[in-house]
Amino acid sequence: MTYQAPVKDMLFCMNELAGIERIATLPGFEDAGIDTAQAVLEECARFTEGVIAPLNAAGDRQPSWWQDGRVTTTPGFADAYRQFGEGGWQGLQHPAEFGGQALPRTISAACAEMLNSANLSFALCAILTDGAIEALLTAGSQALKELYLPRMISGEWTGTMNLTEPQAGSDLALVRTRAEPQRDGTYKVFGTKIFITYGDHDMAQNIVHLVLARLPGAPEGVKGISLFVVPKFLVSADGTLGERNDVQCVSIEHKLGIKASPTAVLQFGDGTAGSIADRSGAGAIGYLVGEENRGLEYMFVMMNAARYAVGLQGIAVAERARQLAAAYARERVQSRPVDGSLPGAAPIVHHPDVQRMLLTMRAQTEGCRALAIAAAAAGDAAHAHPQADVRRREQALYEFLVPLVKGYSTEMSQEVTSLGVQVHGGMGFIEETGAAQHYRDARILTIYEGTTAIQANDLVGRKTVRDGGAVARAFAEEVAAVEAQLRQRDSDAAQAMAQRLAVGREAFLEVVDWVLARFKSDPNAVFAGSVPYLLLTGQLAVGWQLGRSLLAAEDRLAAGDDPAFMRSKITVARFYADHILTRVPGLRDSIVSGSEAIVEMALEDF
Amino acid sequence: MTYQAPVKDMLFCMNELAGIERIATLPGFEDAGIDTAQAVLEECARFTEGVIAPLNAAGDRQPSWWQDGRVTTTPGFADAYRQFGEGGWQGLQHPAEFGGQALPRTISAACAEMLNSANLSFALCAILTDGAIEALLTAGSQALKELYLPRMISGEWTGTMNLTEPQAGSDLALVRTRAEPQRDGTYKVFGTKIFITYGDHDMAQNIVHLVLARLPGAPEGVKGISLFVVPKFLVSADGTLGERNDVQCVSIEHKLGIKASPTAVLQFGDGTAGSIADRSGAGAIGYLVGEENRGLEYMFVMMNAARYAVGLQGIAVAERARQLAAAYARERVQSRPVDGSLPGAAPIVHHPDVQRMLLTMRAQTEGCRALAIAAAAAGDAAHAHPQADVRRREQALYEFLVPLVKGYSTEMSQEVTSLGVQVHGGMGFIEETGAAQHYRDARILTIYEGTTAIQANDLVGRKTVRDGGAVARAFAEEVAAVEAQLRQRDSDAAQAMAQRLAVGREAFLEVVDWVLARFKSDPNAVFAGSVPYLLLTGQLAVGWQLGRSLLAAEDRLAAGDDPAFMRSKITVARFYADHILTRVPGLRDSIVSGSEAIVEMALEDF
Repeated sequence: MTYQAPVKDMLFCMNELAGIERIATLPGFEDAGIDTAQAVLEECARFTEGVIAPLNAAGDRQPSWWQDGRVTTTPGFADAYRQFGEGGWQGLQHPAEFGGQALPRTISAACAEMLNSANLSFALCAILTDGAIEALLTAGSQALKELYLPRMISGEWTGTMNLTEPQAGSDLALVRTRAEPQRDGTYKVFGTKIFITYGDHDMAQNIVHLVLARLPGAPEGVKGISLFVVPKFLVSADGTLGERNDVQCVSIEHKLGIKASPTAVLQFGDGTAGSIADRSGAGAIGYLVGEENRGLEYMFVMMNAARYAVGLQGIAVAERARQLAAAYARERVQSRPVDGSLPGAAPIVHHPDVQRMLLTMRAQTEGCRALAIAAAAAGDAAHAHPQADVRRREQALYEFLVPLVKGYSTEMSQEVTSLGVQVHGGMGFIEETGAAQHYRDARILTIYEGTTAIQANDLVGRKTVRDGGAVARAFAEEVAAVEAQLRQRDSDAAQAMAQRLAVGREAFLEVVDWVLARFKSDPNAVFAGSVPYLLLTGQLAVGWQLGRSLLAAEDRLAAGDDPAFMRSKITVARFYADHILTRVPGLRDSIVSGSEAIVEMALEDF
Repeated sequence: MTYQAPVKDMLFCMNELAGIERIATLPGFEDAGIDTAQAVLEECARFTEGVIAPLNAAGDRQPSWWQDGRVTTTPGFADAYRQFGEGGWQGLQHPAEFGGQALPRTISAACAEMLNSANLSFALCAILTDGAIEALLTAGSQALKELYLPRMISGEWTGTMNLTEPQAGSDLALVRTRAEPQRDGTYKVFGTKIFITYGDHDMAQNIVHLVLARLPGAPEGVKGISLFVVPKFLVSADGTLGERNDVQCVSIEHKLGIKASPTAVLQFGDGTAGSIADRSGAGAIGYLVGEENRGLEYMFVMMNAARYAVGLQGIAVAERARQLAAAYARERVQSRPVDGSLPGAAPIVHHPDVQRMLLTMRAQTEGCRALAIAAAAAGDAAHAHPQADVRRREQALYEFLVPLVKGYSTEMSQEVTSLGVQVHGGMGFIEETGAAQHYRDARILTIYEGTTAIQANDLVGRKTVRDGGAVARAFAEEVAAVEAQLRQRDSDAAQAMAQRLAVGREAFLEVVDWVLARFKSDPNAVFAGSVPYLLLTGQLAVGWQLGRSLLAAEDRLAAGDDPAFMRSKITVARFYADHILTRVPGLRDSIVSGSEAIVEMALEDF
């Protein structure tokens, strides 16, 4: 077994941190209590461990390949994707109206983590399809929804997000792909899109491309971008597939990691794809989604879902790397314990530095999981709570947490997968071991769906400054409330956590004040500190959830529930307090003092 | 040009930090003043930029390959190695008596950095050959020296270090390879060695393997290991090559990085190599180096040199990654500056977060270079100073600094090469860009020649505790002296550096006291903090040299020398103070409070 889903820890997070039973009181989620959660998670664990995880190494060794405009995926992927669709896993969180399971995100997020742990490359196809479904749900006409959603939710068709162009990466204002209106109400799309995940493949009958493009005479910049559906095969009114559309996969990239997932260059409207070549007038036939020039707004809906999902990818690959390293550390015998407790060489898990590395991996991974599941619960309440003011408050909290889940969990995943290599010593550098694959795969996570700097700018601008720091301060109050509870406990662990949280919270508030005071007058200084601000806030937010986790574990331990597990949760939280939260004051110092040197440097000296 | 050697910064370090003119007063180094240094560095820059650097990407795309027991290197490597030898580069630091240039390490270290920046994989062959030369110089008989050294120093033959076996990595006590004495005074060596860098290749006429093995009846553990020379081809008394020895390369590894450098599994004495097969009695013919059972001691000589060299590799790959990222940041246009200083999208070097990343790369790289060159100067004085007490003092400082140069510079290289990928955004994940190669190549550096934990244990045990903290405290006094000078300056930069150094030094001294107090009574706690202690000490030591660098740059600026360069050096030092030295107090907290959680965790929960 190369992967064992951490079902127990996920259920602990749902019960103790996310309040799954409260979510089950929300309209539409009546069946989503802890029993449902447990049943779904156990079934998902069986499927991902048994079917998906074994394909992970194969996907790295025999990646997707391109020939004559077609992408063939790693042997086994297509069959596994069929099972994924038939099992209902693509539809987990989507509306029952179009064939989904309508489960809360709190549950579907845990399943998504498992799928990603099992196989990051495979899971990407599902993530992109989820994003396309979200965009259609948000802005698609009823006709588009009825035609496309049931087949996407069933896993028969997959989806893509077409944003990036060679000159337009983080800066979508530079998008040049154009769409020309036709007399029949359709559009013809022309342009080149790059970095399109699963832009072509052989795992589904059709691929539904969601494409950003400009209409003739549209305003410049991001306010002139519209969103189109461009299917790989044209779809007739009854849903049967027709001719090949004029969109062609002209190449795929040779990447550092996630090699099984094809990263395509797509050419729209050059008239060479399939049977289109002999038709008069090239152009990929597309259908407008929602209103003209509101494409970026709709795409943000997809992007927020996708950003959260990429955060889960960070947690997922960290979990997988942790399991691999822990197993190796139990097996590999090398050197006598430093305390002389054994007469000869011992498994390296006995050595304090290996223990420090493994605990760093566990604390960071479980901490980010706790934050992600708590954020999902906020998202569910924001979506389904009957009271508008609660929905607003939960939505604001959710939106504050999304850049942290994305930005911090993915940065964390690079630390953890690197430690995974280090625990293996020389064997970690040998590809057959598998630790290196996780390290390579994780490296994309801080880049795609918005780099860490893009997340940080979002945290600074839209999530901190726009409301004058209101949500940021409300978050700090939540942290303070956990501190107060911790201080009432007798244990060293609770006291240590309370103290580190207090120091961290004060540093955070100092930075918030600093950001608010300078945002207008000295934006260079503020944005020079935006990534450290994201890391600081992410560390504090994870500490907040691990503080709650510590309280819950102490209560459950006192009640005699699963003492070994509860003790380990307490220790993990304490480790986090003393090894990760201790980084917060240094980040504060870098932010508030660190801009001078950056601003002073002459441009030519960078 | 894919690499430009940082000659100006290297000469600055030599002049201002290493005191190259004082080194030139030491016996044997009379010709090694700044003019010699400059001439050698400029010639080395031409050679490495023009001949070696262009082979770097090719080595990654078409690595060394193995067939039928022979390794063929990347096209171009063998010819480049010939030029390397003919240019006298292998012999730079070695004695004139055997054909070397006898230059001080202070100069040869800078050349080694260039060679490694140009091509980490290529440079490894030279590093291992250096190590083998050092071991023979230290312990070889006059006959062995005369037979082998001239051809190794000329680059005609290369060397390897054969330590690791499948069950013996960090723990050499577990070495099983055996050597049987023969009547003629030679030995026959039997066993399997793994991870042997350049264990076979086609770049030289002969390969001189230095092999750790046990003699019959030798004591168990590390005290029963002897060192042998085992040449690939037997060498007759006049130095001509004879028969193929019974050592065979049975495979090479498929690695994450440094792919051009073959990492061999060597089989000694199975009777299948070359013409040996038809001889009666297999066994690789070897020659004892020095005395029986003192092999590990001699190997430590090689390892210390090699550890320092691997530290340089960290600096080298960081420098190359920095240059690539800085060039990309000047070219890639994306988004308008946040301060509105330009009307449209600008090269990303204008964005504060990109500037923060590039400055982190520059400050870490130049800081570690400053420390490495200062350490080399201590090594030169330890070697050549006429006064014994000075030699002792400088040797103690050098030995204190080696685990920092190795441990900290290599950990640093992973941060910097990762930032190099991040600056490139999505392009960084595409192999053709080249940033990913540096990231992959760097990943071995914290592992081989002793993992970071091994360096940290050395720093704790041999370098801090053994003398009761004397050298550690002397180092802190050096830092305090720099603080005092900085405090007398008017500039904000000097004041900021003085303050961060003081905080860092106090944290360091607190940790030293903590380590000394607990080393005997609670070794698990001490070793749980050993890597954080190494990082803390490394950060402080680099800050110490950048503090000196800041003082020197202010002086030179006041004198009107090269103002743009001196200003950039001041800014780099200040950036380091506010962005890297700020990490020190958090590490102190993790060390002194962080062991509780590690010790509490049940073994099965890691």
